[in-house]
Amino acid sequence: MLQARYRGAGDIDIHTAEIHEPGPGEVQVDVAYTGICGTDLHVYRGHMDARVHAPAVLGHEMSGRVAKLGAGVAGWKVGDPVTVMPLEWCGECPACRAGNTHVCQRLTFIGIDAPGAMQQSWVVPERTLIRLPEGLDLRSAALVEPTAVAVHDVRRAEVAPGDKVLVVGGGPVGVLIAIVAGHAGADVLLVEVDPARRAFAADLGVRVTDPGQVDLAAMVEEWTNGAGVRVAFEVSGAAAGVTDAVDSLAVRGRLCLVAIHPTPREVNLHRFFWRELTLVGARLYTRDDFETAARFVGDGTVPADRLITHVEPLAFAARAFEALASGTGQMKVLVDCVGMA
Amino acid sequence: MLQARYRGAGDIDIHTAEIHEPGPGEVQVDVAYTGICGTDLHVYRGHMDARVHAPAVLGHEMSGRVAKLGAGVAGWKVGDPVTVMPLEWCGECPACRAGNTHVCQRLTFIGIDAPGAMQQSWVVPERTLIRLPEGLDLRSAALVEPTAVAVHDVRRAEVAPGDKVLVVGGGPVGVLIAIVAGHAGADVLLVEVDPARRAFAADLGVRVTDPGQVDLAAMVEEWTNGAGVRVAFEVSGAAAGVTDAVDSLAVRGRLCLVAIHPTPREVNLHRFFWRELTLVGARLYTRDDFETAARFVGDGTVPADRLITHVEPLAFAARAFEALASGTGQMKVLVDCVGMA
Repeated sequence: MLQARYRGAGDIDIHTAEIHEPGPGEVQVDVAYTGICGTDLHVYRGHMDARVHAPAVLGHEMSGRVAKLGAGVAGWKVGDPVTVMPLEWCGECPACRAGNTHVCQRLTFIGIDAPGAMQQSWVVPERTLIRLPEGLDLRSAALVEPTAVAVHDVRRAEVAPGDKVLVVGGGPVGVLIAIVAGHAGADVLLVEVDPARRAFAADLGVRVTDPGQVDLAAMVEEWTNGAGVRVAFEVSGAAAGVTDAVDSLAVRGRLCLVAIHPTPREVNLHRFFWRELTLVGARLYTRDDFETAARFVGDGTVPADRLITHVEPLAFAARAFEALASGTGQMKVLVDCVGMA
Repeated sequence: MLQARYRGAGDIDIHTAEIHEPGPGEVQVDVAYTGICGTDLHVYRGHMDARVHAPAVLGHEMSGRVAKLGAGVAGWKVGDPVTVMPLEWCGECPACRAGNTHVCQRLTFIGIDAPGAMQQSWVVPERTLIRLPEGLDLRSAALVEPTAVAVHDVRRAEVAPGDKVLVVGGGPVGVLIAIVAGHAGADVLLVEVDPARRAFAADLGVRVTDPGQVDLAAMVEEWTNGAGVRVAFEVSGAAAGVTDAVDSLAVRGRLCLVAIHPTPREVNLHRFFWRELTLVGARLYTRDDFETAARFVGDGTVPADRLITHVEPLAFAARAFEALASGTGQMKVLVDCVGMA
């Protein structure tokens, strides 16, 4: 079978490998589609070589079907449509003992710290499997993982019906947060600097504005009748995004930090004091978030298929990375592992 | 009657003024003791001249007795021991309408935005009065206000029994937080750079260390068995205090921001993401916090009398400011308004 491998900055090759047999408690999955996320792009650019040991099979956003059951696996049958929650926790560290297994202090993130889904056949622990709704197309299902991120973020942010919510950053996760927060009854405004991403979000029915062209503070002031927003999501990863989000919050407002900020950022802590603001970091998801995400993609609450802008067959996985890295208006880029089977 | 007035940076005078009669809904209070807090010191140094209009009577930490009732005031009698919750909110702004009156967007803070308690006779709205426990000495009672700050901070931080808690900064509020958090069942470590303040806190039974002499990260690691602390309070106002607090937190830990940081600070947002940390700003107090504080000072949970390091008669109020401004190991400095009556 074929697998796409990260070999070093900007270098993805296609490799022929043996199909792995599932061991006890493991399941072999025929991969259908694998998405590329922002973290994969960081790896592709060589920024994470200290963590990722090339050659490495990436991919943690996927869909597929159960192909073979290892010893002791029950409750699944060959052909079942699945996705994978790509987390393996230790169960013993202080975070796990406190019940926060998804942010285990020794977490193995499958697809970065262990081989991922950008291959035709993949063996994973049974407990990572998530059942997909019957009839859900497997292209859309590859977006369950990023949708689970959005579900988790909206939960962490404690979005309530009627809340005015600002989402800073309109990449795939920002757009998914806007959709999930809207489904939670919030009135959502997305801000995004890139015109193509703005147009994309608007086409999905998301209210969107350009922070470079409007006076965002004045706009929020008017929109919220002088209150500020109850919730802001920082999904841009930019220093200005943090400032925009903090400056927009109402008294007792809540900032949910989703993006990765590799270097410390200047934060207006006086405003946190003065308005009694809250900042919460949000990372990954729980199983509950993942199952909710599968339902939202399955019932169309999240129009996952409309977020897919580009699909490449596995043999041309390198082109998929190039397309996303080019920054030319791509939202979700998938690698088709079925077409090559 | 006499009043101490702020006239400009470093300048406190003593002025003879008419006694005000209480209007409808107001109460005239004979002031017993008035404390000086960090914010008063900022005013004294001229840092808040844009907000404070000299000549101004400062003072918002106080105790006294009801002297005269205005029209329509019920439930109080002359001689009742009281303190004052020095907040007047508008009731109409978005923060008030959302129930957060103590952080009203048009809050009047009595003692800064309106005449304060550093005078022999003071007229305040009836609704600001807080009844003091019978038999509580009025010197100790002047510390109910800063204790209310600590009660509010511990509530915002959601301290639970058994939590390991780091308090960064050992001034009066830091020490009060350590005491209140200890009363909430937490295991508390205070870090403070000043040796006199460390000695003071240790004498009160607070476990304290010098962040300049120990490897704080290693100490917290060992103390918490590799978990980090569940709660940290930033009460130092220093950039390093923010870093120490953030670096000490466990997965899903909570940082309560108490100190005023006049300029933006560099914050390690990646750690907020990675460990799903929470930052909450905490400002002032609610009536509930204030009444709890009066009980804690009254029943000795908070040994308020032991925090008082210096008392000056009202006629020498300038010396009280000088003593606190000198930075020579003072904790709580009071002005005695009774001795001059």
